[in-house]
Amino acid sequence: MDRSNDDGNDLAPADATLTPLDAARADLLHRLLASGRLLPTGVDGLYGRDQVFNSVLDGIDAALNLLAAPEAPIAATFPPMLPRVTFDQIGYLRKFADLAGPVFSFLGGPEEHKELLKRLDDGADYAPLLTQTDLTLTPACCYPFYATSPKSIEDAGASYTTRGYCFRHEPSKDPMRLQMFEQREQIRVAAPEEVQAWRNLWLERAAEFLSELGLDVTTDVASDPFFGRPGRLMKQHQLSQQLKIEFLVNVYGDDNRTACSSLNYHQDHFGEIFGIRTPSGEIAHSSCIGFGLERIAVALCNQHGVNPDRWGLKLRERLRLA
Amino acid sequence: MDRSNDDGNDLAPADATLTPLDAARADLLHRLLASGRLLPTGVDGLYGRDQVFNSVLDGIDAALNLLAAPEAPIAATFPPMLPRVTFDQIGYLRKFADLAGPVFSFLGGPEEHKELLKRLDDGADYAPLLTQTDLTLTPACCYPFYATSPKSIEDAGASYTTRGYCFRHEPSKDPMRLQMFEQREQIRVAAPEEVQAWRNLWLERAAEFLSELGLDVTTDVASDPFFGRPGRLMKQHQLSQQLKIEFLVNVYGDDNRTACSSLNYHQDHFGEIFGIRTPSGEIAHSSCIGFGLERIAVALCNQHGVNPDRWGLKLRERLRLA
Repeated sequence: MDRSNDDGNDLAPADATLTPLDAARADLLHRLLASGRLLPTGVDGLYGRDQVFNSVLDGIDAALNLLAAPEAPIAATFPPMLPRVTFDQIGYLRKFADLAGPVFSFLGGPEEHKELLKRLDDGADYAPLLTQTDLTLTPACCYPFYATSPKSIEDAGASYTTRGYCFRHEPSKDPMRLQMFEQREQIRVAAPEEVQAWRNLWLERAAEFLSELGLDVTTDVASDPFFGRPGRLMKQHQLSQQLKIEFLVNVYGDDNRTACSSLNYHQDHFGEIFGIRTPSGEIAHSSCIGFGLERIAVALCNQHGVNPDRWGLKLRERLRLA
Repeated sequence: MDRSNDDGNDLAPADATLTPLDAARADLLHRLLASGRLLPTGVDGLYGRDQVFNSVLDGIDAALNLLAAPEAPIAATFPPMLPRVTFDQIGYLRKFADLAGPVFSFLGGPEEHKELLKRLDDGADYAPLLTQTDLTLTPACCYPFYATSPKSIEDAGASYTTRGYCFRHEPSKDPMRLQMFEQREQIRVAAPEEVQAWRNLWLERAAEFLSELGLDVTTDVASDPFFGRPGRLMKQHQLSQQLKIEFLVNVYGDDNRTACSSLNYHQDHFGEIFGIRTPSGEIAHSSCIGFGLERIAVALCNQHGVNPDRWGLKLRERLRLA
């Protein structure tokens, strides 16, 4: 948005009350805002993007298209929403209540509307006048695929590729943690052994891909941020079964790595919920790998500078920027 | 998603209880679903899109890029959300309460979470356990630009181009009326006479562009669907001042045309709210033209068939499909 000629190399105003980690986060956010790569909206974790930043996202997406091409996935996209019924079937609200984004609207008549206007005039809370709709924001762009996948899959199973916005309610001043962000996902629904082989393939592919972008990436077994006490068992299960593997990038130091990609093995979780069966009649397994497009792009801006024009030719070619 | 080899020319199951208009809508939706262009989610007005349908959307977007190139607009995008503060400043909830999409989440502690789990187990209403966040879905992808526009614009003003998902809570079985859909917008913020000249330019450009796609399009002065009685005066004002001009496409007959593009002159509405001034110190005016990408694509599928492979070469070239 041409908001400055700043090359993004100046430091954010120092704030002595911040921890070193928070100061590093504030500094990175400042560089992204000052260079115009991100555009502020007034809410933490909600930013616009300029054409340069969008080109980097598109470049990562295009490079992943090439990487996924051998398995000829079906490409499709969904709006960043799920039916509430699907959301509840998946159990997202149970497990990640604090991250969820159910959508409300006003379903009242003239009397309630009069009251709504009065509350807006008074700056009063109008939430009690709103009603939950049958829609929720989706926290991952793979979810719609399990719900719409054919109930009887063919021998080789199904392989999908998608890209789209996702929502997780976690306001943060860390530019590596957005509330509404774009994911690029590869999805596999098939017999257990097919899914496991696919997962091993992407475990290698993803680590190699991220390293080739010049990022310092490590892989680790991880667990999801399940809500509260009931989540402890789920965490233990996920860790002991190695169901989630994260690709962690070094942006804030080796001890404060952030996941920029996540490879998940759901076993029969979605197959069971949505009744997806293999030709031999067993419940299908599924796995997905999600790439956080903004996280990778922000990590690249941190690593190589906020001006992709100045990135090395090899990287620019890989991301179709040259 | 390869859900059938159907060429989309079969008719939807006849339903004698439907009006002819609703039957035509059901038939068009059926053709789009049967051919796999749209993917069902279980909620009216929320559909996935296959690669073919997405290519048509991208083609319309690319053609509009060419059309807008002479004015060298600043390209940027925002996630499909607005800060609640901005949403309330704009007055959207006052005017279009029934279309709004405020986002809620769960902000409770362990006790409330226990109650949430209980209600999920019982299939009971859990809405009272949710809290409004400081985010709402955006009903138009131009809104973030007025809020983030420089408060003091230069002589020529600002010209923006954007594309993004928008939400309007209006569930419908009409495939021309989606709940979450993509808009492509051109935006102009400048002195009144600049904005008016820009508007006249796009009035011609848009009509010509849509006609060249082979669509039967007419233009008409229109008003927004303001909510309830207080909206009547706003409608009258909008009509008498000719502030909204719609480009109406013939999909369901000449008497039932649907807007596929809308050219809006806001006068000083956004300039006033967000304090945007011209170099001479007057409040800036603004105008925008929004193209409903799915509406244009659905109209094209209705006009030329659901298989873009079979569209004429000239159209395919224009939309970069050839």
